Amino acid sequence: MASIHTYLINGDFNQVISPLDRGFAYGDGVFRTMLVRNGVPESWPQHYQKLVADCAVIGIVCPSAELLMGDIQQLFPITHPPIDTIEIAKVIISRGEGERGYAPPSITMPTRVVIKSTASVYATKNYSDGVDLHLCETRLADQPKLAGIKHLNRLENVMARMEWRDESLFDGVLQDQEGNVIECTMSNLFARFGTKLTTPDLSHCGVAGITRQRIIALAHTLDLEVTVATLSLECLLQADEVMICNSLYGAFQVRSLNQKVWPQLNLAKNVRAALAYA
Amino acid sequence: MASIHTYLINGDFNQVISPLDRGFAYGDGVFRTMLVRNGVPESWPQHYQKLVADCAVIGIVCPSAELLMGDIQQLFPITHPPIDTIEIAKVIISRGEGERGYAPPSITMPTRVVIKSTASVYATKNYSDGVDLHLCETRLADQPKLAGIKHLNRLENVMARMEWRDESLFDGVLQDQEGNVIECTMSNLFARFGTKLTTPDLSHCGVAGITRQRIIALAHTLDLEVTVATLSLECLLQADEVMICNSLYGAFQVRSLNQKVWPQLNLAKNVRAALAYA
Repeated sequence: MASIHTYLINGDFNQVISPLDRGFAYGDGVFRTMLVRNGVPESWPQHYQKLVADCAVIGIVCPSAELLMGDIQQLFPITHPPIDTIEIAKVIISRGEGERGYAPPSITMPTRVVIKSTASVYATKNYSDGVDLHLCETRLADQPKLAGIKHLNRLENVMARMEWRDESLFDGVLQDQEGNVIECTMSNLFARFGTKLTTPDLSHCGVAGITRQRIIALAHTLDLEVTVATLSLECLLQADEVMICNSLYGAFQVRSLNQKVWPQLNLAKNVRAALAYA
Repeated sequence: MASIHTYLINGDFNQVISPLDRGFAYGDGVFRTMLVRNGVPESWPQHYQKLVADCAVIGIVCPSAELLMGDIQQLFPITHPPIDTIEIAKVIISRGEGERGYAPPSITMPTRVVIKSTASVYATKNYSDGVDLHLCETRLADQPKLAGIKHLNRLENVMARMEWRDESLFDGVLQDQEGNVIECTMSNLFARFGTKLTTPDLSHCGVAGITRQRIIALAHTLDLEVTVATLSLECLLQADEVMICNSLYGAFQVRSLNQKVWPQLNLAKNVRAALAYA
């Protein structure tokens, strides 16, 4: 089912993206995707903080939280009395328009885009039974200068996602060039070994999502000790449980990865409850 | 001096880029930049062939040569009698609009953009004395799946180009993560050792430009034997001559890279003549 989109560009329903926008020309920008519940974006402080930090890595001054929140309020008006709705906001910040050539103009005016779309409907069995994953042949390149940030250079994710068409596979596991597990195309990943919860080190590639960050922060409430470490595929396959996460679905238990099948346990369910996801 | 731009999107002066265009969302597309002399794009067969090949790598069906040439003829009309002009055409092909998510829609309609801009004016001394290069701290990531193609994921080039503001430095040398020389931010590179002309292997990163390809093909006419090989920085610094190239300026002699200064020789001048550049 196609989503229905409306969007604001620099706060304006009638503005458009120029082909001279460096977001289009070079993928020169960053983005975030978040749930909006009854007009209120979830985990907004974390999303905005991450947007500012990611912008800073590539030298963009992020528009103010007030401007962005104003856009969100225009696109997702709060009704009185409130109607129970869940929608999705995608926020894109590009460096703005520029001349030909990689050097940014001396004065840049970032382009801010907020896109509203209908929420993804996840199968009930994803919550009850977990999800099946594809092991991607496409591997992530090592780029310490851009690792962790959610920039607009996402061709690797596109190439990886094009590897499978079987809609029963929820996401695909991405490894680095050395074969270490990093993340999935649209999710971060955790593996439990006893009371130890391991999530891959993202200092050379991958996107450090805010749900991953929230899980790292709350793991102790589930009596789990988090380690951020190199995680080989061999090691992942020996985990007691595997879980993936992002801002839209919270956390899902991983049922299988290729031939490997994990027993039905409750890590993702407990994490969803702790994150206050449905 | 700011360039003056006009552009056609899908052959239409009034069309715009949607923020849902995958070129903007993910850098999901490819591009080329070429000289247009008196309304005729230079090396068009090579540029079009490269556009088709690059599109194919990421699974985009490139619009026909007729469509693109029609756009170019609209933007760069040939006058009668001809007026001697040199302008620049940038051709961008994105996968087109899509839903949220990395999976391309089952039916995609690529977006084609042709942008006209005024030609860069290169300093006369670039031709007579050569150019000075910066050694970039930013290194290219190894991604064999995307190596060689000129896609829209160009944040590495942007980050590298942001390293220097001294306008006397013409371009910056990019190395891979292991320290081998690959290219410059907007140019390919050749090093001469005696009668051997070496250009870096681009099978794991870098952009294989068409001027590089043309030089590889014509080198024998200059009594040079070309090798495509791994080229360490140490090795580059021992070259008899170094030259950079792209479709806009042809070839420039490299005068210096950081502390290293090369003697004034004629490789680039001879190559420009062979390429029929001014």
